[in-house]
Amino acid sequence: MTLRHFLTTQDWSRADLDAVLEQAAQFKQSKIGRQMAGKSIALLFFNPSMRTRTSFELGAHQLGGHAVVLQPGKDAWPIEFDVGTVMDGDTEEHVAEVARVLSRYVDLIAVRAFPKFQDWAVDREDRVIHAFAKYSTVPVINMETITHPCQELAHVMALKERFGELKGRKYVLTWTYHPKALNTAVANSGLLIATRYGMDVTLLCPTPDYVLDQRYMDAAKRNVAENGGSLTVSHDIESSYRDAQIVYAKSWGALPYFGRWDQEKPIRDAHKHFIVDEAKMALTDNGVFSHCLPLRRNVKATDAVMDSPACIAIEEAENRIHVQKAIMAALV
Amino acid sequence: MTLRHFLTTQDWSRADLDAVLEQAAQFKQSKIGRQMAGKSIALLFFNPSMRTRTSFELGAHQLGGHAVVLQPGKDAWPIEFDVGTVMDGDTEEHVAEVARVLSRYVDLIAVRAFPKFQDWAVDREDRVIHAFAKYSTVPVINMETITHPCQELAHVMALKERFGELKGRKYVLTWTYHPKALNTAVANSGLLIATRYGMDVTLLCPTPDYVLDQRYMDAAKRNVAENGGSLTVSHDIESSYRDAQIVYAKSWGALPYFGRWDQEKPIRDAHKHFIVDEAKMALTDNGVFSHCLPLRRNVKATDAVMDSPACIAIEEAENRIHVQKAIMAALV
Amino acid sequence: MTLRHFLTTQDWSRADLDAVLEQAAQFKQSKIGRQMAGKSIALLFFNPSMRTRTSFELGAHQLGGHAVVLQPGKDAWPIEFDVGTVMDGDTEEHVAEVARVLSRYVDLIAVRAFPKFQDWAVDREDRVIHAFAKYSTVPVINMETITHPCQELAHVMALKERFGELKGRKYVLTWTYHPKALNTAVANSGLLIATRYGMDVTLLCPTPDYVLDQRYMDAAKRNVAENGGSLTVSHDIESSYRDAQIVYAKSWGALPYFGRWDQEKPIRDAHKHFIVDEAKMALTDNGVFSHCLPLRRNVKATDAVMDSPACIAIEEAENRIHVQKAIMAALV
Repeated sequence: MTLRHFLTTQDWSRADLDAVLEQAAQFKQSKIGRQMAGKSIALLFFNPSMRTRTSFELGAHQLGGHAVVLQPGKDAWPIEFDVGTVMDGDTEEHVAEVARVLSRYVDLIAVRAFPKFQDWAVDREDRVIHAFAKYSTVPVINMETITHPCQELAHVMALKERFGELKGRKYVLTWTYHPKALNTAVANSGLLIATRYGMDVTLLCPTPDYVLDQRYMDAAKRNVAENGGSLTVSHDIESSYRDAQIVYAKSWGALPYFGRWDQEKPIRDAHKHFIVDEAKMALTDNGVFSHCLPLRRNVKATDAVMDSPACIAIEEAENRIHVQKAIMAALV
Repeated sequence: MTLRHFLTTQDWSRADLDAVLEQAAQFKQSKIGRQMAGKSIALLFFNPSMRTRTSFELGAHQLGGHAVVLQPGKDAWPIEFDVGTVMDGDTEEHVAEVARVLSRYVDLIAVRAFPKFQDWAVDREDRVIHAFAKYSTVPVINMETITHPCQELAHVMALKERFGELKGRKYVLTWTYHPKALNTAVANSGLLIATRYGMDVTLLCPTPDYVLDQRYMDAAKRNVAENGGSLTVSHDIESSYRDAQIVYAKSWGALPYFGRWDQEKPIRDAHKHFIVDEAKMALTDNGVFSHCLPLRRNVKATDAVMDSPACIAIEEAENRIHVQKAIMAALV
Repeated sequence: MTLRHFLTTQDWSRADLDAVLEQAAQFKQSKIGRQMAGKSIALLFFNPSMRTRTSFELGAHQLGGHAVVLQPGKDAWPIEFDVGTVMDGDTEEHVAEVARVLSRYVDLIAVRAFPKFQDWAVDREDRVIHAFAKYSTVPVINMETITHPCQELAHVMALKERFGELKGRKYVLTWTYHPKALNTAVANSGLLIATRYGMDVTLLCPTPDYVLDQRYMDAAKRNVAENGGSLTVSHDIESSYRDAQIVYAKSWGALPYFGRWDQEKPIRDAHKHFIVDEAKMALTDNGVFSHCLPLRRNVKATDAVMDSPACIAIEEAENRIHVQKAIMAALV
């Protein structure tokens, strides 16, 4: 029997995902459980977090378990991920030992590890979480690396709460401005989960350079083939928003400029008008708006949109704890 | 029904405060409870802490609940507090989202946020905690901002343990030296709670520049009018200590020099003799000494005073956990 | 009745240590207990940790208790350890207050405090933990200072699991290279526990400068006198490894060069060949290898040794949680 991880929603069947969503809906009604009684989870944050940490830590507690929060390189040792290295540099311990020792202590290991933003060819290998999955003898959960599968489930849960059946809904995944080049993780994830649930998906972005990595574009196409719906890439704001039922916003850096962000900056700066505002939302079919948070107000979306009844970002954020409890319960 | 917070003792009636102190005394006898069973509290530390963090975290646990400790800007995102800002600077998330999302996860939110020490006109607005109180849909607890109401209750609890009735006791709130200009929070709080409990309060400080903010001086006067006792400002050490029953020490920066601390430094340096020592304590009526801790020994008070039976600072520190459990139990 | 601490295994009788190991073996079979129900422990980390923190925090939880993790100087106040100091420098609070206040909140205090690596005459006094032991009114546990007694018990537990009786086994404590001068704590501890359990111990190190502090050499000799076995110092790799049953590796800085590490560096750099590799292990009597972790692969030991069945470092790391739970249960 191979060990079951939660690294990407693509590894789990629709039936698996639907079961998680069902369990999550039950936890939303009744938060206390015993699924983690006597069990524990290590939360490894290579990058900061507020929602993820709070929701995982509390979620484990509400199921009778315990979460240990570790920040390697900050309040724990810096970790080596390469194989065969002569470790005479900064790293003090190899992931082989970290993962195997943690596996002796805890029942689940969750990892947040963002790209380093220097070389996408390296970052897209997603080595940190794959190394943990390789050496760990307990299930590993992705708390955001180059995808964010927990966010995906929280997002689709919020959408199902609003719409019921999602198949055939018009879904716009829109790029928005941010002063820094950000991770594509939530954009990749939005693409994956929206096509997985059979929606008519438009990826709206400033130029072809902002199209997502081919791996995720291809996976989205396979999802469309299997689940119905469609996938369109567009650079036109008006036609993309027109009649949309769901607008999901995210900022990300253009992959061809990866590690040369100074050169991307003027392009990004020229597209601040991608901000989600009331005028754009007025084009939709009474559409809802969401975002994974944190969100820079009046940069990615206006105050008016964030404070409107169309905004379901807080609901989506709440759902993080419910879906994560369901994932832990499924894996433990 | 408006949401009930614990931002300052002034918002709570004497009956409310007495009930908290009563419950705290019971927790001191028997520490385990179920008042927080299935409940949780987020502890947001914008500034470091040892006692506050330990006592809140353990207190929640002893009542069957769970505390999540967050340090925004350190292991969580930096937060925006202004309204309507175009968030293209350092802050990644608005308090509106932080408070609303946390409110979905936890049952209480506690906040420690010191002044920035640059502009008292800004700092005295106490925006961080008021923003959390505005946007949160669960009760908010002040873990020290520009007042320190939890410390107030721990302090008055320690005094009542020693003296029983406090009305009419001679209470000296004395400024002491510290190499840095410190927050006036505990000084403001000492003034509020001592006048609230009807004591004859002397605010002893080096010069009129060290008198506390008018808001707290006025509140103290109102407290005197309502509860009896008196309020005197003095710059004379000997007459202030003479026949005192309670000496409460704290260092703070002079408000007129706020943000221009270099100019205050020579004045502060000229008043190192405000240190609480045996000679001063000998002037009192067998008085007790306390301080909120942390305390720099032989700067604010001598070893002899700290190690004398008159020092009740450790008792006051212990009481933090008891009163905070009572506050959580009252609000949850 | 004097308060019982766990500062060094030398303070505890063999019967005490054997009882802890017995209890630890039971926890390894059945991890959940109630020995800490309603109890708590403060974990004070003056230095970073992964294993120690995870194992203590989880261990307390599995026994029904709660651990509060504090990092003084980082997310808590910097602490003064000298007596009688005029505290007008960086430290904000004296250990007398820290220890006494924590003793009011928790039932156990555990401390990790590495040497400062500037003056061994100062560091060998081990002032931080002794100050906590002096002022605390609850038992204090050493989580690694200049010895590492928890590691000792985890180590000997792993050896007993493999060998049963340890008396008369050939045990090599070998120095290995590391780019930085490290703490002698685990080396001191290896020496103490191996001689305590009556083994034939060889301390293998590059030159006489790498012999450990006289205090530990003397204690090891006393252990030999009381428990049988032997103690040999050697600088010859081949004869040391020949017929060894146990190889325990650690890097440490040479005490005569303490604080003048630049001068030690060329000596250290000339002994990179002390690395534990397959050729050396082939000289042993089918020996096992262990290390306290973290371990720099291919610097202290090769991948081949680390990944061989002879390596029991992961087992030893797992045992940390079991022995620490047994120590907490014994002291609480």
